[in-house]
Amino acid sequence: MWNLIYILDLTGTFVFAISGALSGIEKKYDIFGILFLAFITAIGGGTTRDILLGITPVSWMNNIIYLYVIIAAVVVTFFTKTKIMKWRKTLFLFDSIGLGVFTVAGIKKTLELGLSWEVAIMMGVISATLGGVLRDVFNNDKPLILHKEIYATACFAGALLIMIASYLGIPVVISVPVSIITVILIRIFAVKYEWTLPVIKE
Amino acid sequence: MWNLIYILDLTGTFVFAISGALSGIEKKYDIFGILFLAFITAIGGGTTRDILLGITPVSWMNNIIYLYVIIAAVVVTFFTKTKIMKWRKTLFLFDSIGLGVFTVAGIKKTLELGLSWEVAIMMGVISATLGGVLRDVFNNDKPLILHKEIYATACFAGALLIMIASYLGIPVVISVPVSIITVILIRIFAVKYEWTLPVIKE
Amino acid sequence: MWNLIYILDLTGTFVFAISGALSGIEKKYDIFGILFLAFITAIGGGTTRDILLGITPVSWMNNIIYLYVIIAAVVVTFFTKTKIMKWRKTLFLFDSIGLGVFTVAGIKKTLELGLSWEVAIMMGVISATLGGVLRDVFNNDKPLILHKEIYATACFAGALLIMIASYLGIPVVISVPVSIITVILIRIFAVKYEWTLPVIKE
Repeated sequence: MWNLIYILDLTGTFVFAISGALSGIEKKYDIFGILFLAFITAIGGGTTRDILLGITPVSWMNNIIYLYVIIAAVVVTFFTKTKIMKWRKTLFLFDSIGLGVFTVAGIKKTLELGLSWEVAIMMGVISATLGGVLRDVFNNDKPLILHKEIYATACFAGALLIMIASYLGIPVVISVPVSIITVILIRIFAVKYEWTLPVIKE
Repeated sequence: MWNLIYILDLTGTFVFAISGALSGIEKKYDIFGILFLAFITAIGGGTTRDILLGITPVSWMNNIIYLYVIIAAVVVTFFTKTKIMKWRKTLFLFDSIGLGVFTVAGIKKTLELGLSWEVAIMMGVISATLGGVLRDVFNNDKPLILHKEIYATACFAGALLIMIASYLGIPVVISVPVSIITVILIRIFAVKYEWTLPVIKE
Repeated sequence: MWNLIYILDLTGTFVFAISGALSGIEKKYDIFGILFLAFITAIGGGTTRDILLGITPVSWMNNIIYLYVIIAAVVVTFFTKTKIMKWRKTLFLFDSIGLGVFTVAGIKKTLELGLSWEVAIMMGVISATLGGVLRDVFNNDKPLILHKEIYATACFAGALLIMIASYLGIPVVISVPVSIITVILIRIFAVKYEWTLPVIKE
């Protein structure tokens, strides 16, 4: 199962990098700027998690394939330009898969360090969502995730589910796929039916 | 004395989290966004300090009470909405106390690692102020602390005072409370009499 | 040679700090804000590299001279105000030198940890450029480096050159100065002839 998750993790990285690259093209950044945004979006969440947990040198430094996956994503985006947006639905699906996989990977790493489940949930959500937040900060935008999409909520639900399953002694071979699929489904339904979190009125 | 400081530290965290949550409500962020801003504001300074010093996993991961204090602050802000601003003066007082306590705690941690007093002062100021700077960056605002309030200066004065006291051999049981009170008083007088730092004219 | 590089590194820090301080004056930040921007610009890149690599407490904490160099740069900027811009060409030259030296220093540190040359190049570029990116983020600007100047590209070329030289067995006493000079020359020619990287059109 972890082999499958590893492949999904690389796929998620690829799609997150495309989302970063597209945002850089939109902002009329140059090639370096686009590359920078692709990196930040794809590995910003996991890198922040590693730094907070003290896992250094951060993970991708010891597994160079992530760098090449991101560079490949940028090259693909360059050649297809925004025509890539035609595959919007496919991208969205893999983006959601990335979200689920990053959440679970973040939780796994945190628990392996013997930290509490509250911290594990938080690190799961941060792994999955902070890349997008940093992309918007470096783009000088108000972070989309913080006010519009049910993005973090999907991760949070998946994270909570896996912790409850763990508490109940359900084996990871069941709880991990179920959690990932939960994240994906919540995200898909949220976009389809335009679910949003309540905003507090002043 | 450290027990009292611990309680004041938690109180400071609570009030900083409220300030972050209020800024999220103002920006019309959703519940996740508000929670994110509450966390960043309350623990952003201390977390940055821990990362720079290499204290990882960062402190609050080993003391889960901080997470609950922040969540409690967000819940209180939700239910009172901006009515909480009625207690503006109380909030301001505790915010100032937090500022003083965070400064002293940052200095203490840095010195315990055997680093120099210059670094200790810097880490004291960062512990107390960076949460507010990060709140504004993630809000896509020009950081308030960098151009308006005598905020960092109050921390700097308190930090300098405690280092001088330490140099003169004054026991911490005296120097710590005096420093914290200095930070609080400078902050209060600064707001009351609208003290600002000079701006360089071009 | 490393003694010369150390002096150039301090000079680069000084000039980067001036650039940060000037941006703070332009934004009408107060003295603390200006100091903060000077620090972020001068040591933001190297600090991020150290954190990613797990070199903590970060380097400048153990070599307090960097703090004093930055404070000196801020004091000089205060007293000359923007008259310092008269020396624009001198500043630009030292800024370019800083860029080259920071790149090489970043690579050296990464390779010493036994990490791959891909990561080394990336850390070289981050060491040299991230300070400027963070300056713009905290200034609430769209980062200049990401869309306008051939800044990172110069670093990247120098970084690539030093790695190729290392692969070919060319001694560092030759490859290091050649790399630094390459960075400087690309940067100077880029500004002189207004080279820019292509922007992808949507």
